[in-house]
Amino acid sequence: MKKLLAEFIGTFWLVLGGCGSAVLAAGVPELGIGFVGVSLAFGLTVLSGAYALGHISGAHFNPAVSIGLWMGGRFDGKELPGYIISQVLGGIAGAGVLYLIVSGAEGFNGFSGPGAFASNFYGDSPYGTNYNLTSALVTEVVMTFMFLIVILGATHKNAAVGFAGLSIGLALTLIHLISIPITNTSVNPARSTSQALFVGGEAMGQLWLFWVAPIIGAILAGLVYKYLVPNPKEIVLKD
Amino acid sequence: MKKLLAEFIGTFWLVLGGCGSAVLAAGVPELGIGFVGVSLAFGLTVLSGAYALGHISGAHFNPAVSIGLWMGGRFDGKELPGYIISQVLGGIAGAGVLYLIVSGAEGFNGFSGPGAFASNFYGDSPYGTNYNLTSALVTEVVMTFMFLIVILGATHKNAAVGFAGLSIGLALTLIHLISIPITNTSVNPARSTSQALFVGGEAMGQLWLFWVAPIIGAILAGLVYKYLVPNPKEIVLKD
Amino acid sequence: MKKLLAEFIGTFWLVLGGCGSAVLAAGVPELGIGFVGVSLAFGLTVLSGAYALGHISGAHFNPAVSIGLWMGGRFDGKELPGYIISQVLGGIAGAGVLYLIVSGAEGFNGFSGPGAFASNFYGDSPYGTNYNLTSALVTEVVMTFMFLIVILGATHKNAAVGFAGLSIGLALTLIHLISIPITNTSVNPARSTSQALFVGGEAMGQLWLFWVAPIIGAILAGLVYKYLVPNPKEIVLKD
Amino acid sequence: MKKLLAEFIGTFWLVLGGCGSAVLAAGVPELGIGFVGVSLAFGLTVLSGAYALGHISGAHFNPAVSIGLWMGGRFDGKELPGYIISQVLGGIAGAGVLYLIVSGAEGFNGFSGPGAFASNFYGDSPYGTNYNLTSALVTEVVMTFMFLIVILGATHKNAAVGFAGLSIGLALTLIHLISIPITNTSVNPARSTSQALFVGGEAMGQLWLFWVAPIIGAILAGLVYKYLVPNPKEIVLKD
Repeated sequence: MKKLLAEFIGTFWLVLGGCGSAVLAAGVPELGIGFVGVSLAFGLTVLSGAYALGHISGAHFNPAVSIGLWMGGRFDGKELPGYIISQVLGGIAGAGVLYLIVSGAEGFNGFSGPGAFASNFYGDSPYGTNYNLTSALVTEVVMTFMFLIVILGATHKNAAVGFAGLSIGLALTLIHLISIPITNTSVNPARSTSQALFVGGEAMGQLWLFWVAPIIGAILAGLVYKYLVPNPKEIVLKD
Repeated sequence: MKKLLAEFIGTFWLVLGGCGSAVLAAGVPELGIGFVGVSLAFGLTVLSGAYALGHISGAHFNPAVSIGLWMGGRFDGKELPGYIISQVLGGIAGAGVLYLIVSGAEGFNGFSGPGAFASNFYGDSPYGTNYNLTSALVTEVVMTFMFLIVILGATHKNAAVGFAGLSIGLALTLIHLISIPITNTSVNPARSTSQALFVGGEAMGQLWLFWVAPIIGAILAGLVYKYLVPNPKEIVLKD
Repeated sequence: MKKLLAEFIGTFWLVLGGCGSAVLAAGVPELGIGFVGVSLAFGLTVLSGAYALGHISGAHFNPAVSIGLWMGGRFDGKELPGYIISQVLGGIAGAGVLYLIVSGAEGFNGFSGPGAFASNFYGDSPYGTNYNLTSALVTEVVMTFMFLIVILGATHKNAAVGFAGLSIGLALTLIHLISIPITNTSVNPARSTSQALFVGGEAMGQLWLFWVAPIIGAILAGLVYKYLVPNPKEIVLKD
Repeated sequence: MKKLLAEFIGTFWLVLGGCGSAVLAAGVPELGIGFVGVSLAFGLTVLSGAYALGHISGAHFNPAVSIGLWMGGRFDGKELPGYIISQVLGGIAGAGVLYLIVSGAEGFNGFSGPGAFASNFYGDSPYGTNYNLTSALVTEVVMTFMFLIVILGATHKNAAVGFAGLSIGLALTLIHLISIPITNTSVNPARSTSQALFVGGEAMGQLWLFWVAPIIGAILAGLVYKYLVPNPKEIVLKD
């Protein structure tokens, strides 16, 4: 139960902090944080959550991460359902608190249109860009693939001790720096689900992609990493 | 006394650096640092203060942090009054030096309006936004709650050694990336008090919220963390 | 083979992430990440790749780095050809995936002009600046020189354990913060080659500089570092 | 001699990277790095230089830092002259390379006015601000004071091992986030001297302040830190 509470809190923080920075602070005229700030915010939710809660639950905060770690032989499949449910519920709670805050703004009028409330999208975007379904699919698969390569590698016994939280968090920042204009960046089905639930409409209709693509990317990464590092003892550390 | 001097210097740095970056550099046309720069600055005051002074006083620099650590069973209640007084005095000294610098600007004319001199606010903001009291209260409670969860978790014996200052400082950056438009971000009654004292008027009238909400958030975090990690020995480290 | 796959994946990530952030996200109106975001992205590809893959291949991801490490006596010359080929192929793969994503944008029309598709350049730039060949050459030589000084120093036995990935990645961020307006920043012949291949024309004609200059800089750094630290045992650690 | 070469290279990097980012990249329309990028760049020169060269020379790169460490009982006074001369020469070399690059720009016309070539100033600024001499003096004294408090604290035996380079580098970033609009931020007489030499005129006339103020701040920090931590053995580590 404590592991599941840790996953709940961590995913709550990821959604409230990452999507919250996008909804509340990105577009303030002159001073707003833009995509750089949103990218930093998403990464720092994971960085701070990893050092705070990693020693309790492993700090996945993302169903694709749990699945990728399971494929890479680093996480027990029996724990998957509990982890994924906690992550989705934590995400919904984060979106709920964010909704409560946003709805207290003067002139708040609900959400509409692609990308509203930091929801993920493909095709029409709120940024004047429009990438087709293939672009969105490739982006989400490849970004999640590389996210898992970083996670599997940086948490490996041979990697520098303690730096996993830093490199994984900043890898998520990097992924957002690249891909916000394409899909608002998911690589995390829990984060996509929570925002789609509050926006409804087209966001719900497109939600399938943000489960399918991250999970495909994560599974591929697990397989590649297993080939790359079949047995930790084979590796000779550089000095 | 040395602990109290360390808390004084650290809170001095937090206010001078964080509020100073906002007052002096955020709004310079074209080149100004905006909310991203201010968020970084607040976080880096804590990061640099933590590595410099953490081995002397524990580097709280914030009454809500001292209270949350006390609730979480990590700080002796007898030290609370001295710590809080030092923090408030350090904050006032930081605001005083900042006032001295700002008042040497050509055309300086004093402060007025919500958010002036980086003071905290609810309702009308200097950014064209207006969130109601509930939004402000929820934001400050939840942000302080998560700040303390990160602090309690990252300073835990099972967490990666040495990374506490990094993750706590960057968590404060994250909190600012999310919430500057709502309240100018407090999560720290000492920081709010120092700025309100120099601005007076409405800033003093709203100050109560920036004591009440952070302290509620910190107390809740202490209780939740105690449930999450009742006994460090129960936790089995992942590898 | 595993080392070569790791170099392939790492250079793939460097090109997809670094050039991808530039092509996809730098210039989005109002919210775009600008040079700060692109600089961060390049650095974070190396930072995340280093912690993930460094324990497999050493995480060079750059022919100039492999050559500089070889000159500095830290890498076996026999491995050079395999590493360089893997890096160039990884870069091309990264550029290919990026091309696939970009070409799915509504109104995509191919590339033209200096700096298109994040290609490197000298002379006319897409930013309204124009630095001559000497400026470009000096910039690329000196930037690669300092990049290798950081790499050789931070991976030295006397350096702080574990911080090499952090300082090398952030050094690449720094190098981009300085030199994007001059050449779009190379310091990496693999990254330059992949983008030039997709753009063709003038980008191919200027490609020689982005092999010659980084390699000169790397060789000089290897020689200077060998003078600076001829024998690690001579150094007495400060405390 | 190797220590002096390391100080030369490190200060060369600080000036070329920090001032270079300001001169070359800060003001590019739409995409330029602004003060946030320049602040990051200055900090990352020190961060990367510290991990690369700290095990050789201690990585001061700044006469005020050498003097503050000497006052704090952490650096042998006999080494001061050599260190300071190397730092000033390294800074001049960095400014020279930067001048070579800049002068290759189409339409380059030399420098004039306060803050040109990233020189330090008080009074009239290139940013439309004007702070008086007292503001500039207080700013430089206090910023250098806090810089040295961070340096003395983070390199202390009781501080987290390895994190000194990170916290000192990012403290310099923080200092720039606060004070670029006041003086272009010095806290480093070597950096001020190199830029003033290339600009001449008023920059030379104002140079005295950027020796006097940082040295006063550094001496005060040495004295305060000695009071704060008279004997490392007195301190009991928190856990």
